[in-house]
Order: sequence, then structure tokens, then C-alpha cells
Amino acid sequence: MKKFEAKIRITLRKGILDVQGKTVENALHSIDFQMISNVRIGKYVVLNVNANNFDEAMQIVESACKKLIANPIIEDFQIELSEI
Amino acid sequence: MKKFEAKIRITLRKGILDVQGKTVENALHSIDFQMISNVRIGKYVVLNVNANNFDEAMQIVESACKKLIANPIIEDFQIELSEI
Repeated sequence: MKKFEAKIRITLRKGILDVQGKTVENALHSIDFQMISNVRIGKYVVLNVNANNFDEAMQIVESACKKLIANPIIEDFQIELSEI
Repeated sequence: MKKFEAKIRITLRKGILDVQGKTVENALHSIDFQMISNVRIGKYVVLNVNANNFDEAMQIVESACKKLIANPIIEDFQIELSEI
């Protein structure tokens, strides 16, 4: 059994209104960061997974993302996996 | 004036209790993902910034993170910057 670390970036799909991002953008503009635009806010999840090999670990993490960690209807996710 | 894209990973500092991460971990265990552990949940922010050069853009993003995007008392942040 090997141990892997997964770093998962979860972002809202294109076209989904990012209310939180817009709010942060407006707040940034109000404190003189007018040069910042298109703020999009997602989640960043780091976790460990025990598996026999890299492919099995990737399958487990993908499955966990689809079932619980991300919302595939409105979010995309990208997984970076490495053995630790 | 050049345009840059910043991808910012914001994570809770070591030692700070991650209640949301623990809740997700418990939920994963309840649906047969017992091989997953140490779930930590942070934020992932993508934004555009206009600046004269790379160094200026990095300074702007760092300053925005410290002042508003992240909470430096409990969170660390990592910035990936590229010209677009």
C-alpha cells in the first residue's frame, strides 16, 4: 500500500455567475485595486489517499470529487497527484 | 500595460483546526472512502491584473492577498502569475 497526496483545484464552470468573486472584486476596487478584474473564487482541497498504485489513487480521488467534494453540475475540478 | 493572470492557492496554516475539512473527511468515510485522510480545504482564486511588468503585477497581487483576499493570521497563500 502506497500513500499519495492529491491537490484538487475546484472552479466554477464558465458561464456560472460567481457572486462571491464579484463581491471580492468590488471590495478590491473600493480599496484602490482597480487594476484587478475577473475575480473567480473556487476551492482548493488537499488530501491523502492510500492505494496500491498511482492509477488506483487517481480513480479514488476522481470518484470522491464527483460524488462529494465537487458539484459536477456547476464546478470543474483538476487533480494533481503525487506519491508521498 | 500588460495583462497577467494570477492563480492563488490559499490554505489554512499548519495547526489551525480545519472544521470544514474534517466534516468532508467524515462524510467521505461514511460513503466508503476510508482510504482518504487529512482532508484540508482552502480557497482557489483566479484573477486578472493589469500592470507594467511581472514584478509590479506580483506586488499588486501579494498586496491584495494580504489586505483582503486571504487572512494572513490563519492562512498562507501561494501565487502563480503568468502573462496572458
